[in-house]
Amino acid sequence: MHQDKRIHHVGLQRKLCSAEEAAQWIHHGDTVGTSGFTGSGYPKAVPMALADRIQQAHDDGKPFQIQLLTGASTGPELDGALAKVNGVSYRAPFNTDPNMRQRINAGDTNYLDMHLSHVAPLFRSGALGDMDVAIIEVSAIREDGTLIASTAVGNNQLWLDSAKKVILEVNDWQCRELESMHDIWEVSSTFPHQIIPIVNVSDRIGKHYMSVDLDKVVAVVKTHASDRNAPFSPSDDNARAIAGHLLEFFDYEIKKGKMPSQLLPLQSGIGNVANAVMEALNEGHFENLCAYTEVIQDGMLTMLEDGKMSSASATAFSLSPEKAKYFNENIGIFLNKIVLRSQEISNHPEVIRRIGCIAMNGAIEADIFGNVNSTHIMGTRMMNGIGGSGDFARNAYLSIFMTPSLAKGGNISSIVPMISRVDHISQDVQVIVTEQGLADLRGLSPRSRAQVIIENCAHPTYRPLLKEYYRLGLENVSMQTPHLLKEALSWHDQFVATGSMLSELK
Amino acid sequence: MHQDKRIHHVGLQRKLCSAEEAAQWIHHGDTVGTSGFTGSGYPKAVPMALADRIQQAHDDGKPFQIQLLTGASTGPELDGALAKVNGVSYRAPFNTDPNMRQRINAGDTNYLDMHLSHVAPLFRSGALGDMDVAIIEVSAIREDGTLIASTAVGNNQLWLDSAKKVILEVNDWQCRELESMHDIWEVSSTFPHQIIPIVNVSDRIGKHYMSVDLDKVVAVVKTHASDRNAPFSPSDDNARAIAGHLLEFFDYEIKKGKMPSQLLPLQSGIGNVANAVMEALNEGHFENLCAYTEVIQDGMLTMLEDGKMSSASATAFSLSPEKAKYFNENIGIFLNKIVLRSQEISNHPEVIRRIGCIAMNGAIEADIFGNVNSTHIMGTRMMNGIGGSGDFARNAYLSIFMTPSLAKGGNISSIVPMISRVDHISQDVQVIVTEQGLADLRGLSPRSRAQVIIENCAHPTYRPLLKEYYRLGLENVSMQTPHLLKEALSWHDQFVATGSMLSELK
Repeated sequence: MHQDKRIHHVGLQRKLCSAEEAAQWIHHGDTVGTSGFTGSGYPKAVPMALADRIQQAHDDGKPFQIQLLTGASTGPELDGALAKVNGVSYRAPFNTDPNMRQRINAGDTNYLDMHLSHVAPLFRSGALGDMDVAIIEVSAIREDGTLIASTAVGNNQLWLDSAKKVILEVNDWQCRELESMHDIWEVSSTFPHQIIPIVNVSDRIGKHYMSVDLDKVVAVVKTHASDRNAPFSPSDDNARAIAGHLLEFFDYEIKKGKMPSQLLPLQSGIGNVANAVMEALNEGHFENLCAYTEVIQDGMLTMLEDGKMSSASATAFSLSPEKAKYFNENIGIFLNKIVLRSQEISNHPEVIRRIGCIAMNGAIEADIFGNVNSTHIMGTRMMNGIGGSGDFARNAYLSIFMTPSLAKGGNISSIVPMISRVDHISQDVQVIVTEQGLADLRGLSPRSRAQVIIENCAHPTYRPLLKEYYRLGLENVSMQTPHLLKEALSWHDQFVATGSMLSELK
Repeated sequence: MHQDKRIHHVGLQRKLCSAEEAAQWIHHGDTVGTSGFTGSGYPKAVPMALADRIQQAHDDGKPFQIQLLTGASTGPELDGALAKVNGVSYRAPFNTDPNMRQRINAGDTNYLDMHLSHVAPLFRSGALGDMDVAIIEVSAIREDGTLIASTAVGNNQLWLDSAKKVILEVNDWQCRELESMHDIWEVSSTFPHQIIPIVNVSDRIGKHYMSVDLDKVVAVVKTHASDRNAPFSPSDDNARAIAGHLLEFFDYEIKKGKMPSQLLPLQSGIGNVANAVMEALNEGHFENLCAYTEVIQDGMLTMLEDGKMSSASATAFSLSPEKAKYFNENIGIFLNKIVLRSQEISNHPEVIRRIGCIAMNGAIEADIFGNVNSTHIMGTRMMNGIGGSGDFARNAYLSIFMTPSLAKGGNISSIVPMISRVDHISQDVQVIVTEQGLADLRGLSPRSRAQVIIENCAHPTYRPLLKEYYRLGLENVSMQTPHLLKEALSWHDQFVATGSMLSELK
């Protein structure tokens, strides 16, 4: 048997097979747990072979659907391929794939939108069923059969522990040196759990490798494929303006002595605005920053390289194709600066609250009283999911939400009388930033919040309409939260009917 | 100087004065922090004297209002007296007093509704301003000037540490032996915080006493007065039915091996339904229960006495007058069974998640997709506040919300198409119980949730209307969460207009 560069365990070498053969182990009705978090580290070959198998079954008039649990979002070869063949009856906890999104909103796929730190506890409780098959991408298999994760740790160890059968994809596109970044440490399966002994973001508490009962491994598949994340859009004026307001606010807090000059551990959500904030921080005067976050995007990687950020803890990368390639070729730069943990730990309230994070997450819309919608367009259509924003927002030292004040060419105001779906209650929303400005809501009652949000964050086009809504509420309803029940959702309703929140209001 | 039975420090004996004299230390515009949590352990004499002083100022045409921070709710001598004279410009974090509620909803008092575990972090951040005066009820002052709290620990130590001036009320109605129940341990004022080393509910990690810089103590006032909580209503049929469904569910979970036979540490919200559940648990077959909760009500005290519950951790008592008297006279029974901690610790996500609580909280209303409103009547009128329900619901092993299915003699359905205020998002609501039945929502997507909630929890009078709303949503909107924006809040709107959610729908 030839010496494989990535598969050093002889027994597992013998289980090498094609993706098509591996996919034979998966059956209709199975619960399948995969690696993958924010478009990285997901299996790429077996899911596509599975999609073919499902299509074949459907062509033959036979039912074939699986329940799919992951770390978070995956890529087109997994969520995309399976959605196209309507192969997923149930999906949790997070998705960004457009084909899967369509299935979810059509009701073809039952989607459970979850806090990402809740996946492991809920699974352990039995509420997500038994796991039939785990498909885990690894960058290598060691001599003793232990496994090296790739670009995402997610729920990998939990799936490996729980699944009846395990399929491994050994992806030699992924860097072998990722090993030294991983810190695999799992919460006990009974209560009380152990204390999580992380006090600083760079603390390592676990092992570099994952373990699996080798008897459960039914197939090993070799792949050579990059993660397929979309490139970031270049920062636009709005994103830069939001970042500018935020940096000014940080400066002010430091000046008042409320934050140290190196700030506090940063958490940054996914997306272009979040990335723009990282870029601005990298150009700013801050030094010796660190991050306790879910994902490392391009901007944060640059900060680590430039030395602006000294260390980052996350559960996965989420890099553009160019940056992923660069990272792969220059991983040496980052070796002692990054720790990748299980998502239950990267997002754990215990650690977030202890270390005092600055949480920065995107919003779809916010209302004048400071509640935030992160998930549903017009209250009904699922976009991606809440992800880890709730884990961080409720437990952070400072909880910030960011959004441009307008969407759809001005036909949508991101600041509305009442949001159409609540993901973050006002208690968990301390700061709202749009390109118009920043509202520091800490300590403010609903009425005070309304004034600051309308004045600082709403777009001038919608500001008078919001003022009028609030004025009428005060006049006709008063109360702690002066809403007009008849009008509260009328902006959304009108958008659905006419394509603009403005048209009739003009 | 005579030997005082409760004031053993000579220097503080010299500061003895009348409540009227003590109240002179408080001025217009001051931020005042008091002891008190769920109607217990609050100062009773100085606030009334302060109310007189405020009334006098108002009579003289002078402005006099304070900002009032507490542990949680207090009693008529504090929130009630100050509200009657319109003496509070700002109030946080929780209130149940009817006079204060009226001020809040009239907009006379700016009210910040907070997670009770967030008070200390937000205060430390500076967002609640500097503290001018702390008024703390204690049961005794020790020889060295350290202080013994009374029936509520709340934020006492934080207020003592932070206030520029301190007024102590030494209430000899409160049991001197409370000392041995207290466990005073505070989170550090900088990040990272220490690890909180509580692994079991009865773990003691701090001191029996509170500390204060004696130079800051400006007045000591003696009182002899009981806490003034309302008696509980006797359990009615609805409360007993809710408790019955819950106990049946616990049995089922134990049978499936998902919970140990002694269950897991219980958290129980305040109110009659919560108390009825405790009564039912006490009559049931469970043994060796324990609690990690905010408050100890009558039902839990009985469980501790009867040996059904072996230990309870909380931050305060909330007892009926009869039970409080009984407790005072028989405290020996409870000495090794109860630990009272600061509210930041009793409600801390770190501990709640580690020990795996069963959280049981009341709801005002729930929607068909499983979101819960705990605070606002018809989306506008503040009832009490979110209290600790968010601390527990998001971090518990099992998060349960309870409500009778009807209110106002059937004119309100507690299960509605869309709730008028969201306090607990569907991700944090795992089980809903009404007298009609129990909905186990764990793992369910919104569409599956809607069916189970309508079928199991809604009252038969409203069930067909809810089914019709959901059917029309599916037909006309579909999507992840099939809401009809035009109709979503129409039930509330109609109740406001006609006094019944049913009238026009009939």
